[in-house]
Amino acid sequence: MSTISGHRFTKGHGTENDFVILPDPDGELDLTAAEVARICDRRAGIGADGVLRVVRAKAAGLGDTGAEWFMDYRNADGSIAEMCGNGVRVFARYLVDSGLAAAGDLPVATRGGVKAVSLGAGGDVTVDMGAPEVFAESEAVLGGTVHRGLKVSMGNPHLACLIDHDVAALDLTREPGFSAADFPAGVNIEFFRPVGVRHVAMRVHERGSGETRSCGTGAVATAVAAATAEGLDPLREGSSWTVDVLGGRVEVVFDGTTSFLRGPAVLVADGVLR
Amino acid sequence: MSTISGHRFTKGHGTENDFVILPDPDGELDLTAAEVARICDRRAGIGADGVLRVVRAKAAGLGDTGAEWFMDYRNADGSIAEMCGNGVRVFARYLVDSGLAAAGDLPVATRGGVKAVSLGAGGDVTVDMGAPEVFAESEAVLGGTVHRGLKVSMGNPHLACLIDHDVAALDLTREPGFSAADFPAGVNIEFFRPVGVRHVAMRVHERGSGETRSCGTGAVATAVAAATAEGLDPLREGSSWTVDVLGGRVEVVFDGTTSFLRGPAVLVADGVLR
Repeated sequence: MSTISGHRFTKGHGTENDFVILPDPDGELDLTAAEVARICDRRAGIGADGVLRVVRAKAAGLGDTGAEWFMDYRNADGSIAEMCGNGVRVFARYLVDSGLAAAGDLPVATRGGVKAVSLGAGGDVTVDMGAPEVFAESEAVLGGTVHRGLKVSMGNPHLACLIDHDVAALDLTREPGFSAADFPAGVNIEFFRPVGVRHVAMRVHERGSGETRSCGTGAVATAVAAATAEGLDPLREGSSWTVDVLGGRVEVVFDGTTSFLRGPAVLVADGVLR
Repeated sequence: MSTISGHRFTKGHGTENDFVILPDPDGELDLTAAEVARICDRRAGIGADGVLRVVRAKAAGLGDTGAEWFMDYRNADGSIAEMCGNGVRVFARYLVDSGLAAAGDLPVATRGGVKAVSLGAGGDVTVDMGAPEVFAESEAVLGGTVHRGLKVSMGNPHLACLIDHDVAALDLTREPGFSAADFPAGVNIEFFRPVGVRHVAMRVHERGSGETRSCGTGAVATAVAAATAEGLDPLREGSSWTVDVLGGRVEVVFDGTTSFLRGPAVLVADGVLR
């Protein structure tokens, strides 16, 4: 018998990046990698991209960070991850929906630092994703075609490539080629195309995961590249971008200091693990 | 708001063929194809291969079939299906587990007729899959190699091919070629290899679905071909077969009259839809 038998859960998603949320306010759950993998198994478990354990920062052994809640994020394989832009939105929606936090401005502790989240009683959730770091151009190779792109770090590495044709036509079943010199630890690669005024469509190949339905840091990196392509400096000039991903739509806002990601966070079902 | 908001569900699987079970004893649920598709969406919903609505045969408008319960099986896209060998095991396990039926012999009404299921208070579940129909040999082409196989009907068409190397090495990301003359409506194609005494390992490509973790009728068709390859007549001679699939292990028994499929049926979680 697992320690998680009988434990409550909620399933939710942000632009189809989906999570099993495990409430554990007092940090009593000794969640193993094997248990996480079993929960996230899409056939033999509940199925999700990751687990969000909801634990009070104090119970998690954190000092005074100003955040009452810590998001213990685990990847589907049970490994530990620092942050997840879609996950923290769903996490905040869960806190407010279940009465564990009030709507408004809500700091959430993560392994990647405290994230400033803001949300109402319903609707979209906004998270401060921090200031992007912008580097030089690099190249991705897809199906024999070389695409120029911008190297951007959101804590994790991105290469955001502006293309001149419909992103729906891309074949991302294989990882695009990239410069190992520019990206020694691998890279998340976005392809995007303008579809309106400050509005782009994007697809993303995440390192280690393949193509995904959505990537929060990738959406911000894409907006950085889209702004740069229009002659804007996203690090100094304010602008707002709509980014369509396979799993829905998010908004990216630059205010001259930092970047914000706004998007849906939907809770689908509540239950009890057997 | 959907009529299924607030509805209870249980998630379960049989050899990793997974289902969302919706209890609806009095047939009050007007379950649309769109709702089924949303529930089965693996990112934006609960995620499953199909939905099993649990409804009393009388409430479903069935005459006296001897079965108290009707399995209203829906595919993940919302379309209606006649039967599912893994689904009916999970369905029966749910009935017994939730006190809606007693363990023992349990007839279950399906669109493919009344199925005789037997199960204990826990453990594996056995279902009478009916007598296979055996036809002539045909051929599948995979990666340029021609494989001879046996055409078998379990209500749905199968081509079960004995191969002489490890099934793990097969690339089933594409549908194998087959004779359109022999299978005008398409075919489920199994590749199997003996790994012990009356014990085979099998992989299956299901028409319309691609490779799957398990296929109940495919396991029986494979046992038919394996028995035939050993000079047995599975329609007249009794024999028992162990079939390893990607999602686990099932047993197939021929008693000279019909075929039985025995395998696990696991309930994973219970919950309420939002």
